[in-house]
Amino acid sequence: MSRRILVVAPHPDDEILGVGGTIAKYTAAGDAVTVVTVAGHRPPLYSEEHYQRTVEEARAAHAIVGVARSVFLDLPATMLGNEPVHALNGKLVELVREVDPQVVLVPYPDRHVDHRIVFESMMVATRPVGAGARLELVAAFETLSETHWNAPHIEPNFTPSWVNDITSFIDHKTRALRCYASQIPPFPGPRSVEAVTALAMFRGTQAGFAYGEAMHVIRMRT
Amino acid sequence: MSRRILVVAPHPDDEILGVGGTIAKYTAAGDAVTVVTVAGHRPPLYSEEHYQRTVEEARAAHAIVGVARSVFLDLPATMLGNEPVHALNGKLVELVREVDPQVVLVPYPDRHVDHRIVFESMMVATRPVGAGARLELVAAFETLSETHWNAPHIEPNFTPSWVNDITSFIDHKTRALRCYASQIPPFPGPRSVEAVTALAMFRGTQAGFAYGEAMHVIRMRT
Amino acid sequence: MSRRILVVAPHPDDEILGVGGTIAKYTAAGDAVTVVTVAGHRPPLYSEEHYQRTVEEARAAHAIVGVARSVFLDLPATMLGNEPVHALNGKLVELVREVDPQVVLVPYPDRHVDHRIVFESMMVATRPVGAGARLELVAAFETLSETHWNAPHIEPNFTPSWVNDITSFIDHKTRALRCYASQIPPFPGPRSVEAVTALAMFRGTQAGFAYGEAMHVIRMRT
Amino acid sequence: MSRRILVVAPHPDDEILGVGGTIAKYTAAGDAVTVVTVAGHRPPLYSEEHYQRTVEEARAAHAIVGVARSVFLDLPATMLGNEPVHALNGKLVELVREVDPQVVLVPYPDRHVDHRIVFESMMVATRPVGAGARLELVAAFETLSETHWNAPHIEPNFTPSWVNDITSFIDHKTRALRCYASQIPPFPGPRSVEAVTALAMFRGTQAGFAYGEAMHVIRMRT
Amino acid sequence: MSRRILVVAPHPDDEILGVGGTIAKYTAAGDAVTVVTVAGHRPPLYSEEHYQRTVEEARAAHAIVGVARSVFLDLPATMLGNEPVHALNGKLVELVREVDPQVVLVPYPDRHVDHRIVFESMMVATRPVGAGARLELVAAFETLSETHWNAPHIEPNFTPSWVNDITSFIDHKTRALRCYASQIPPFPGPRSVEAVTALAMFRGTQAGFAYGEAMHVIRMRT
Amino acid sequence: MSRRILVVAPHPDDEILGVGGTIAKYTAAGDAVTVVTVAGHRPPLYSEEHYQRTVEEARAAHAIVGVARSVFLDLPATMLGNEPVHALNGKLVELVREVDPQVVLVPYPDRHVDHRIVFESMMVATRPVGAGARLELVAAFETLSETHWNAPHIEPNFTPSWVNDITSFIDHKTRALRCYASQIPPFPGPRSVEAVTALAMFRGTQAGFAYGEAMHVIRMRT
Repeated sequence: MSRRILVVAPHPDDEILGVGGTIAKYTAAGDAVTVVTVAGHRPPLYSEEHYQRTVEEARAAHAIVGVARSVFLDLPATMLGNEPVHALNGKLVELVREVDPQVVLVPYPDRHVDHRIVFESMMVATRPVGAGARLELVAAFETLSETHWNAPHIEPNFTPSWVNDITSFIDHKTRALRCYASQIPPFPGPRSVEAVTALAMFRGTQAGFAYGEAMHVIRMRT
Repeated sequence: MSRRILVVAPHPDDEILGVGGTIAKYTAAGDAVTVVTVAGHRPPLYSEEHYQRTVEEARAAHAIVGVARSVFLDLPATMLGNEPVHALNGKLVELVREVDPQVVLVPYPDRHVDHRIVFESMMVATRPVGAGARLELVAAFETLSETHWNAPHIEPNFTPSWVNDITSFIDHKTRALRCYASQIPPFPGPRSVEAVTALAMFRGTQAGFAYGEAMHVIRMRT
Repeated sequence: MSRRILVVAPHPDDEILGVGGTIAKYTAAGDAVTVVTVAGHRPPLYSEEHYQRTVEEARAAHAIVGVARSVFLDLPATMLGNEPVHALNGKLVELVREVDPQVVLVPYPDRHVDHRIVFESMMVATRPVGAGARLELVAAFETLSETHWNAPHIEPNFTPSWVNDITSFIDHKTRALRCYASQIPPFPGPRSVEAVTALAMFRGTQAGFAYGEAMHVIRMRT
Repeated sequence: MSRRILVVAPHPDDEILGVGGTIAKYTAAGDAVTVVTVAGHRPPLYSEEHYQRTVEEARAAHAIVGVARSVFLDLPATMLGNEPVHALNGKLVELVREVDPQVVLVPYPDRHVDHRIVFESMMVATRPVGAGARLELVAAFETLSETHWNAPHIEPNFTPSWVNDITSFIDHKTRALRCYASQIPPFPGPRSVEAVTALAMFRGTQAGFAYGEAMHVIRMRT
Repeated sequence: MSRRILVVAPHPDDEILGVGGTIAKYTAAGDAVTVVTVAGHRPPLYSEEHYQRTVEEARAAHAIVGVARSVFLDLPATMLGNEPVHALNGKLVELVREVDPQVVLVPYPDRHVDHRIVFESMMVATRPVGAGARLELVAAFETLSETHWNAPHIEPNFTPSWVNDITSFIDHKTRALRCYASQIPPFPGPRSVEAVTALAMFRGTQAGFAYGEAMHVIRMRT
Repeated sequence: MSRRILVVAPHPDDEILGVGGTIAKYTAAGDAVTVVTVAGHRPPLYSEEHYQRTVEEARAAHAIVGVARSVFLDLPATMLGNEPVHALNGKLVELVREVDPQVVLVPYPDRHVDHRIVFESMMVATRPVGAGARLELVAAFETLSETHWNAPHIEPNFTPSWVNDITSFIDHKTRALRCYASQIPPFPGPRSVEAVTALAMFRGTQAGFAYGEAMHVIRMRT
């Protein structure tokens, strides 16, 4: 039975860094994956041209992993805090209602303030009432490299409870990642293709796979 | 597709206190549930007669929730620590190998030392290698009342990430519980039928159901 | 010796959901309980009429549990973050100074952003200096259902260190709760009377009582 | 109304290091304090003569702070693990039953293995059932210097929720401490009188007192 | 080899309360210590005159411990949240770039909202990329008394992994502290000279020194 | 100035899995590294022949990374719990006294019971008194794959505060690892050379290096 999956990326590339292989695996299995990208590097702090380039990169990456629908909320990066809480919540609740997903994947709250704000807002949007009452699984993915820059033992530290086997989809992930030419630095950059592949191999091998993507299960309802 | 489920109870009644409704739900769906009961109140600290009574109560309870196979390892309660680590691990690894389950449900490590020893041993037996390489889900259930007697913020405190809807099986759970006449005190006893039902209603309603059983997801592999 | 108790509710109904039985018990013992309600569902996001209805419900509920004084700060719900930190702190410090309580009960910081903001502000207002120098006990109560929607093991998770026996006051609590007709859904709603009663039975029985209200002790000074 | 207080010391001196001032304060208020000392430096690892000296030091110290009854279980230090779990639990349950205290103060589980074993056993003995059903307060005290040698963020780390004002009893505490001439090193030894006094001043001043003793509230029942 | 050290104080006096002895020790060893003070008690909530007095006190204190360069960002206390995230981050990133330190000492995020905002911003500024790529050590210091007013087990609680021996510099610390005549209350004030000295003795003796300053190691790169 | 480093491995190969590159880096810098291997796969559960093979593999691996002295305590794996606590502590305290190291690296307490027992014993042996009074740094390393099999959020979960740049020594690490032909499985085994290399790349890139080894700083004294 085909499912509806909602992936929430704070900025273009987070969805591939975190769950690019998982998206490819779901779409290969016939699931419909919607990716909503909340913010981007756009005015006033960045140029609109730069932002449009990342949106195009996102569309190319999404095509590789088979995303069914790409939504861009077009908010300016690092300025999500300017949005009233109820307004951002409202937009995301509306999306959950509209997509009506069984599975929602959100960013782990980490070093990047936008990741935290998106996480908090999605925690409201996925409460097991109203729009969230039919959700089966909500989980948080790690985003190289912001997730591993949380202060150890002061801020929450990512420890996965779910590893998804992406051995057959690691190539999709790295190909999609390469679409983000403006975002992905060469090795040994912390979000280089090599670093992302190493993380996938580390997560996979510790769970009995060759390559994996790791998540923190927040709420499972069965 | 029918699945194989392994439930590990430190003592007779823990499996019903923790996941009696879940077992009934699984068996109603055609899954084969094996319950292994590791220890019991038997000599030298308790009488063999008392132990046999609890085993009979267990068999009656298991019949109500549809357990396919009941295994009793017959170790003496509170004395699991006398068993060499490799010996207890060996027995439980062998069971995992033999049952070859997709899902394993274990007790949360709590106030009762046997719960801790069984938990640790099952954590070895469910490592994602060897016998554990085909496991899809390992989760820990709460056992009224020992789980809620862990010292707050010194010992691990149970906070669920998974709630299983047992609305249609709450009656199975309470009927199975009543089989344990020797173990279950009247209200307001901490593991009275009323207390167990209240917990199920609390867990259920917070997850959008009427009644639920809550678990901590330890390892999900998909 | 009669004591002064201060209960801080983010919105009308939180004080009964969390500590309705405790308030009734204190007032029955001769203590003077002040309830301050910080915010409410009022303009611009909600109608003033709706808000006034909840205030009336609060007054009815407070009468049942014997609240001596009800203070409404009339801030708009979900918009507490618009209030400058020093301004909200100032109002609450002033209240602590004026009431001069021995015991202060505050909401656990949870899924609802207002609960977090009120918690943080009260942590400033109850520092053991100035207005807080005579406080004997500060504790945080759980609020069905927001408290149990915090992300497990990412956000703080409620684990009580104090259970107050409300066996003789469970009826006060449920009667007061029913006053909030506009807020309390039917079973299996997560804050239905049945769910609230189940939580009270669960908390009570695990502590050796029939019904209880649970709190996290933050600061005890003797 | 006079109360019964039970203080559990793993070894002679822990009760003064942790709660010497608190004991003095309770006894000054008319409460009856029983101190049970579980183990000591005795054969086979230490000489009986050495042990008897520490018992005499304990009796002198207890006289200063007004202990009503001193019980010595005479188990050999570092070898508590040799005692079967049910046997040590049994002894401590029996003591709780016999003393029938309202308040029980136990060592925080820390670097010293005996502190951990005594803590775990007392957690069983103070469950809110049977002998523990009338307890009002169970708390864990810090023991210079073992408590602060727990591995940060791997083992539990002491953070107090209760500070007891011992400003009027700091002299009792230091005088009692000096009785332990065989145990207490000169400054800057980690359990020197100066270090103990500094901790009391630190704990006290952070809670609005001059001197204090800090505890972690485990279970409060009212 | 002489090093460059950057100490970040939310307000004047935090640098001495937290690491006054450490600064003196570093400067005595030939290191160049820069102290940046982010905010202060100035208009609109406080008078400019008051603020200037604290800046003068800071300069006097810095002279005693040998600070090489004192930077005042002159932001108004409790209003750091009004500064856009990217603006405050930008100022602190620029400082890290300019000072190019090997060691950065930041305030532990605690009861004072400014401490939290400065902490978060410094966590961005010290990421191991760009300006932060040459950092060898980032650690967080405790600030009497705000650090010990975090809610136990709800908010992060300070537990040190690093103690710096300041036995030879405790006098520098207390002399520098006395410069802050407008800030430091008499004993038993929670940040009195006596309380600060007691903390230094407590931290020192638990680590094998007479006096110490304690820190939480956030990121060490070697 | 040359330093003395003590690395404690529960079993042969843990020292290379955890800190093989770090050892090579230290020895290249002129430090003297002692590796003590506490236990091994020997009778009664394993053959002596098998154990001797692992000891020979260890010697070959140690030669590659320049270990100055290799000590084998020859205890039987999984049976460390049979050793009286004071006896194992005594052996390790004696080693600390004899080696007199500035830096001690110990295994993180994880899935393997021997790792936990060695960790606890080393925590006693490195207390900042007696033999431990001159230690400058104690840190815990991760051991693929046992460290990542701890139960998330129930048992302690490894989050590093220190990353050591081993870019120039990754080859030493992998060559030393290959010496353990009897222990290291082919990819995708969880401790295959590829998995170990991936972890080093992941840890390194997140800290600004190409390859790194990560540790949890337990106690730094300067």
